[in-house]
Amino acid sequence: MSDFNIGLIGSGRIGQVHAGSIADTKGANLAWICDPFIEGAEKLAAEFGGTVTIEPEEVFTAGNVDVIVVASPTPTHLDMIDRAIDAGIHVLCEKPIDLDIAKVEKLRDKANAANVHIAIGFNRRFDPQFESIKDRVTAGDVGKLEQLVILSRDPGPAPRAYIAVSGGIFRDMTIHDFDMARNFVPDIVDVFAGGANVFSDDIKAENDFDSVNVVLRGRGGELITIVNSRHCSYGYDQRLEAFGDKGSLWADNVTATTVKHSSAAHTEAAEPLIDNFLVRYAVSYRRELALFLDGIRDGKNYNPTFDDGRAALILADAATESARTGKVVSVDGTL
Amino acid sequence: MSDFNIGLIGSGRIGQVHAGSIADTKGANLAWICDPFIEGAEKLAAEFGGTVTIEPEEVFTAGNVDVIVVASPTPTHLDMIDRAIDAGIHVLCEKPIDLDIAKVEKLRDKANAANVHIAIGFNRRFDPQFESIKDRVTAGDVGKLEQLVILSRDPGPAPRAYIAVSGGIFRDMTIHDFDMARNFVPDIVDVFAGGANVFSDDIKAENDFDSVNVVLRGRGGELITIVNSRHCSYGYDQRLEAFGDKGSLWADNVTATTVKHSSAAHTEAAEPLIDNFLVRYAVSYRRELALFLDGIRDGKNYNPTFDDGRAALILADAATESARTGKVVSVDGTL
Amino acid sequence: MSDFNIGLIGSGRIGQVHAGSIADTKGANLAWICDPFIEGAEKLAAEFGGTVTIEPEEVFTAGNVDVIVVASPTPTHLDMIDRAIDAGIHVLCEKPIDLDIAKVEKLRDKANAANVHIAIGFNRRFDPQFESIKDRVTAGDVGKLEQLVILSRDPGPAPRAYIAVSGGIFRDMTIHDFDMARNFVPDIVDVFAGGANVFSDDIKAENDFDSVNVVLRGRGGELITIVNSRHCSYGYDQRLEAFGDKGSLWADNVTATTVKHSSAAHTEAAEPLIDNFLVRYAVSYRRELALFLDGIRDGKNYNPTFDDGRAALILADAATESARTGKVVSVDGTL
Amino acid sequence: MSDFNIGLIGSGRIGQVHAGSIADTKGANLAWICDPFIEGAEKLAAEFGGTVTIEPEEVFTAGNVDVIVVASPTPTHLDMIDRAIDAGIHVLCEKPIDLDIAKVEKLRDKANAANVHIAIGFNRRFDPQFESIKDRVTAGDVGKLEQLVILSRDPGPAPRAYIAVSGGIFRDMTIHDFDMARNFVPDIVDVFAGGANVFSDDIKAENDFDSVNVVLRGRGGELITIVNSRHCSYGYDQRLEAFGDKGSLWADNVTATTVKHSSAAHTEAAEPLIDNFLVRYAVSYRRELALFLDGIRDGKNYNPTFDDGRAALILADAATESARTGKVVSVDGTL
Repeated sequence: MSDFNIGLIGSGRIGQVHAGSIADTKGANLAWICDPFIEGAEKLAAEFGGTVTIEPEEVFTAGNVDVIVVASPTPTHLDMIDRAIDAGIHVLCEKPIDLDIAKVEKLRDKANAANVHIAIGFNRRFDPQFESIKDRVTAGDVGKLEQLVILSRDPGPAPRAYIAVSGGIFRDMTIHDFDMARNFVPDIVDVFAGGANVFSDDIKAENDFDSVNVVLRGRGGELITIVNSRHCSYGYDQRLEAFGDKGSLWADNVTATTVKHSSAAHTEAAEPLIDNFLVRYAVSYRRELALFLDGIRDGKNYNPTFDDGRAALILADAATESARTGKVVSVDGTL
Repeated sequence: MSDFNIGLIGSGRIGQVHAGSIADTKGANLAWICDPFIEGAEKLAAEFGGTVTIEPEEVFTAGNVDVIVVASPTPTHLDMIDRAIDAGIHVLCEKPIDLDIAKVEKLRDKANAANVHIAIGFNRRFDPQFESIKDRVTAGDVGKLEQLVILSRDPGPAPRAYIAVSGGIFRDMTIHDFDMARNFVPDIVDVFAGGANVFSDDIKAENDFDSVNVVLRGRGGELITIVNSRHCSYGYDQRLEAFGDKGSLWADNVTATTVKHSSAAHTEAAEPLIDNFLVRYAVSYRRELALFLDGIRDGKNYNPTFDDGRAALILADAATESARTGKVVSVDGTL
Repeated sequence: MSDFNIGLIGSGRIGQVHAGSIADTKGANLAWICDPFIEGAEKLAAEFGGTVTIEPEEVFTAGNVDVIVVASPTPTHLDMIDRAIDAGIHVLCEKPIDLDIAKVEKLRDKANAANVHIAIGFNRRFDPQFESIKDRVTAGDVGKLEQLVILSRDPGPAPRAYIAVSGGIFRDMTIHDFDMARNFVPDIVDVFAGGANVFSDDIKAENDFDSVNVVLRGRGGELITIVNSRHCSYGYDQRLEAFGDKGSLWADNVTATTVKHSSAAHTEAAEPLIDNFLVRYAVSYRRELALFLDGIRDGKNYNPTFDDGRAALILADAATESARTGKVVSVDGTL
Repeated sequence: MSDFNIGLIGSGRIGQVHAGSIADTKGANLAWICDPFIEGAEKLAAEFGGTVTIEPEEVFTAGNVDVIVVASPTPTHLDMIDRAIDAGIHVLCEKPIDLDIAKVEKLRDKANAANVHIAIGFNRRFDPQFESIKDRVTAGDVGKLEQLVILSRDPGPAPRAYIAVSGGIFRDMTIHDFDMARNFVPDIVDVFAGGANVFSDDIKAENDFDSVNVVLRGRGGELITIVNSRHCSYGYDQRLEAFGDKGSLWADNVTATTVKHSSAAHTEAAEPLIDNFLVRYAVSYRRELALFLDGIRDGKNYNPTFDDGRAALILADAATESARTGKVVSVDGTL
């Protein structure tokens, strides 16, 4: 089978990750890089190849593009998906689909009826740790799943300018955890969220929380806890537990090596955690792309779908409302 | 200094633990054991000494009793404390003070004005793991405390008859975690609780939950998460994390030894957890008593007070209401 | 059954440990404390009870002594055992039996024919970690035992004066590891030892090693490695692995709690190790005594015997010779 | 800079690893694959590219080859290195250089005077775990290095036919550990080795050991322990400790994920170890090649040299003799 020609929309931080994944993936060819900031596209092309343009339309009409990877700013996501459908090009789009659920609903029927593969970039599903737990839960290693605990803390907060347009912590950061929750318990019925401002005046000034706790309930009574912080002194803290009637699976943090240090001050100390999500999740980004291409080959979609992206946004909206009203918000249609 | 003569009220499971603690504690002398089920008292006296009686009054009026340890059923607790105050005898009473906050309020002023030491048996404060974390948080090892995560699962549910009179999971089981939360963040202002029935028809039939998640918020914005289950296949799961701006302290479960086993099936497997709270917390029960006696000697109260017992019950009541209404319940007066 | 009256010979550091064990052990009564340094005996008696004397004979002839615990200096050990045999008193003697194998051989037949129980204080056999591994090896958890790795490092070297009369590192320190080796593989046939002087001028001046490596071979081909150092910056390092064809059991070090600390500097750091052998092995000293008394009650000897003490000394002598000659030394009669 | 054209000699198991490394390494181009078993070369070329031949001479005289990677059987190694020198081609040769130290000595002067880079494939130096320990020892994290403990066990023995021509366990398997020892302590002065036959009749029939223990002493008194077994039920056991006066660095085994499983049978069980050295050390093989190419670019040799390969063989020979004679064998010239 010939290679997939890929058009990459966006050459920023995430765009660079995807360019690296494409370069590392057999059967993937970086054909186009599109960014209105053309210097970014050119720099990436110099490293990984591909033709550059400032105009997405050029990519969609080039005629030789099989797959679009959307890594441009969130407000452009829906439009890119829409155009990809029209152009008959498969599309892997970064999260979130959009910050406005109403716009998502408008495209929903078209997206679900499309003849192309549409995937949303919840790459953490493909992290070897979390994927292993998912597989083992499916295989029955914990029996019936009853509780899920997700600890997820960023090394440090994004700049205030980013926070201002992020849609809030639930839509920007927790949305990964909402998708992870649905990865294990697709059908969520209740959302409760509590937020706090404990360290960042900038985030407070943007009327956003720097720390949140979320409790979700699945239709089968599964209780899911999410603990988030926008900062973490010891790195990028990403842990998960799946608890069932027959046992528990626990994913510890990932360090660069297994080396432990003992001294007069402490024993068995591991190295600081990887504090960069691009490094921490480098493998999952690569697996995300590889599985997306495999899915196209196999005629199946192995990745989170448009509806998965929509469901995560519904949960984020519910959490935003819950944190504001202090009430549980019931949701419908996350399945 | 001469020994403290101790009168033990109740010779059931917890009474036996306290009898063992008294026997192991220098300066403590088990003088009386009182139980309407006299065979229980006699059996305990045969092992640990002490005079038996079915009548508490005999203990209160004996004239040689310095300390009462109350391990009788919950409905008797307030009355025992009340009588101990009147008799001028120090009292260490098992949790909860009562299931009815109104009755607790009635005794509150008298209890706080009493000339005797009154302590409530939240022994987990004295577990070496949790106490070490508390000390290190106080010493600044995690900086400013921002989040607390409490994972607490019982090995298996109590019998249905016990559940029926327990006051519900929040007042019976989670109350330990409410006190632990207040051990780190005394002043709680918001309570949210979500409950589920995922494994026990008996508990459901009693209109109680078998699994709960609680989110508390402290006045300083601290977010506290409690994850409870009434069962746990791998033993008595008791973990805690204190997270702050400078780091995290995490208490793992306790196993009998440090031995790890590797085989074709797995590597580095620890032994099953201790599945019995009396064994798991044996040390904390002993330290609870020793500190109570130290406090009497020093004229200070190192143990959770009557008001701590009241505050935990207020949180349990708030959680019960929250789980019923799906709303955050604000509380006042847990400080 | 009435209590065992115990005569303790020696009130130094180890004597104090045994006094504590006696006080903590049901059915054990500290009847006598004997030390030529009478103030030491008196201080111990003030804390734990017992009659003091400077004259061992008084203890042997008191008529009410059931058990002698020998914690006096090594040169007195054989004589104390000899006298205990003559007096018909059971004897638990600290290691080593003696520094001179010839003297040990002289008493051997009498000791083995004695009507009293004789035990040598290799308390580590009763450490919960190592005992658990022994039990599990016996139960088949690693299949056929093939290799044993013993890592054993002291927190810091003894004073030079002690080193001078210690008999050398193999007879003084490694002897514990020789007994541990024989606990798993009783019949050792070959001994190789390599020593080095890497940090202590004092030890070098005494013509002793500060660091050693020993390789033992059992009759069944089992290979045993011992790694020793007279110092360890992070505490008292005591680890052991039993490796067989079906798996491995590994005993990690013991810390006071399970708490792990993460910060910008490191993650999951455990506390420093316990750096005092009396604290690290407090439980094993207690279990050693309890089992010795159980053995007397049951008419069996559950502790290391006179011949075990002799065998460990034979291995220490062989190691001393091997380190001097650079040759493997074959031994006979460690079984 | 243009790519390095690489000629790969040998398309067996190790040859396939190197082909994969070349494919994954930027600036490396697999130009030739040479194997008398031409089907092997063709299969590899189909996957990774390159021209195939049965005749090494064709590779040496092609004119466009910059680097030779030697993955052919051991008896061919010296000849390949010799020819590479003559052809002015850099050469990365698998371990061991040869089984006969006399042949190695013959080429030594020529090799050391050669104008090409010569590296021996002790890839474990480039394992992230061991390299991190090496870097941290160099940085002073353990103070002065005093002891090194190397635990190294293969998942299962090679076939008898391979054992027969392997040169014995010390030259075939332990040689990696000898190089690792020298990676930390280059100048070894004493070698002691003990071998045993505990599980394999095949290995015994070949007059080889299935399990060995080695003690090395460095010129500075450093004591190094190597524990080897030709089988390991739980996978490929590869651990290392560097111990110094200020602390210890310990490399635990590597598992595919950080996931731990708890159940009624055990707690915190990690996954079975990777049981294949090609997978376990995949990263180190890639880094070995990348550093070799970097070295050529920089005009420095970052890899183990011809003399490192010679020194490891000297230690293996000494261990073979020591295990036969039961004596320490002094070595000269491992520096």
